[in-house]
Amino acid sequence: MEKKDTFDVTTLKYDEKGLIPAVVQDADTNEILMVAYMNEDSLRKTFETGKACFWSRSRKKFWLKGESSGHFQVVKEIRTDCDRDTLLLKVEQIGGAACHEGYKSCFHNMLPFAEHEEGVVGDRVFDPDKVYKE
Amino acid sequence: MEKKDTFDVTTLKYDEKGLIPAVVQDADTNEILMVAYMNEDSLRKTFETGKACFWSRSRKKFWLKGESSGHFQVVKEIRTDCDRDTLLLKVEQIGGAACHEGYKSCFHNMLPFAEHEEGVVGDRVFDPDKVYKE
Repeated sequence: MEKKDTFDVTTLKYDEKGLIPAVVQDADTNEILMVAYMNEDSLRKTFETGKACFWSRSRKKFWLKGESSGHFQVVKEIRTDCDRDTLLLKVEQIGGAACHEGYKSCFHNMLPFAEHEEGVVGDRVFDPDKVYKE
Repeated sequence: MEKKDTFDVTTLKYDEKGLIPAVVQDADTNEILMVAYMNEDSLRKTFETGKACFWSRSRKKFWLKGESSGHFQVVKEIRTDCDRDTLLLKVEQIGGAACHEGYKSCFHNMLPFAEHEEGVVGDRVFDPDKVYKE
């Protein structure tokens, strides 16, 4: 059985930019917190540190989630899908909110479908004006 | 309040290929079933039909999930994230399995991290050799 410290991150499929999307899910409630992108280096760092690390596409740099806000994501499980081109991380979200806007989940915008009206769902956990915006 | 039949799919952010990733989640259990990609047309069709429609990157064509297998995804909610560049669909998975390999979830490959050994997790719902592979 392959061990943690020998997992070969090159066995996954990255896109033409060297990135792989990662769905981040609350390990307790299964709520989807966010989707972000990793490269090989940030995935290695995630394995090494146990905290979710990404590649920031907007800032074009390595991104330890929580490095500025303190809202780290402590990783409990890492899975990949049948195509090995997407990751699923189950995490404990420190601070209770993954979204830089202060919501628990980045997916707080309901679109108008079926009985749902368009609008924000979910409560704000913190005031985003008081923390660094990741 | 904006209504279902007036939602403007162009208000979302698509990548340079005109695609937006969609995380598909079981509406009852919150389990992540799969991640696939939509373009504007497949998102419009999803709104119109209530069944999840994607753009198949491998086959380069419109893809009504379940069109061959019968394993449609009946959409219950459509959300987007704070950047409006990712979708979240909560669905009822017809047939019980989203993955063409017969597993409920495409994310059935555990990677070796923390106490987890590398290997397949989750039971097969059907025998993939007996159905069309999407």
